[in-house]
Amino acid sequence: GQRVPDSVLNLSPTQYRHLADETLDTIATDLEDLFEDKNIADADVDNSAGIVTITTAEGTYVINKQPPNKQIWLSSPISGPNRFDYIKGRWTSLRKGEKLFDILEKEVSDMFGEFEFTEKF
Amino acid sequence: GQRVPDSVLNLSPTQYRHLADETLDTIATDLEDLFEDKNIADADVDNSAGIVTITTAEGTYVINKQPPNKQIWLSSPISGPNRFDYIKGRWTSLRKGEKLFDILEKEVSDMFGEFEFTEKF
Repeated sequence: GQRVPDSVLNLSPTQYRHLADETLDTIATDLEDLFEDKNIADADVDNSAGIVTITTAEGTYVINKQPPNKQIWLSSPISGPNRFDYIKGRWTSLRKGEKLFDILEKEVSDMFGEFEFTEKF
Repeated sequence: GQRVPDSVLNLSPTQYRHLADETLDTIATDLEDLFEDKNIADADVDNSAGIVTITTAEGTYVINKQPPNKQIWLSSPISGPNRFDYIKGRWTSLRKGEKLFDILEKEVSDMFGEFEFTEKF
């Protein structure tokens, strides 16, 4: 895979924490809004202690901070596990170059109809 | 890897739920006891909505139910992601045959000193 660029390595713990919190909050809030707007009763979002969990009929998503390596980790019942570094303003999988928000948008859209995040990290 | 045996495929949703809850409760309770007994202040356990999270200096563990395929999924900051089916009384990785409780015991022991679960699933 790709090497982790210096921009990631140089992110301070505080910068990482703010950025990761903002990322998780955006994911949680946008999905809560979606489930409420569309009256989706069998899906649920929880956001606490640096971990967002999304329960759906397809299974459970977990998105969590991993502070020691400044990553965000995704566990998806559709696409499995994936780890993301913050590269050029987007959480990017070093393995395949995929973006966290692109994966989530696609899977959420497949389940609940066309969906876009209000902001992308 | 190995095929999923009929015993797993035939587990009813209720049987799966009871078993997985008991598994997660054992992990959470035993680790809470460990952190309390050893006065480990920089580690924390949370157990809610079918998801156990363990925060340590090494990073965040997530252990969650995945009801649609009757699995338990582990995300470890040390060994990465892994998925387990319930085979012959133990949560077993189909990929490598490793047991969930063996992985956790080893990693927790490496971090906090010799550790064993009170019960193994």
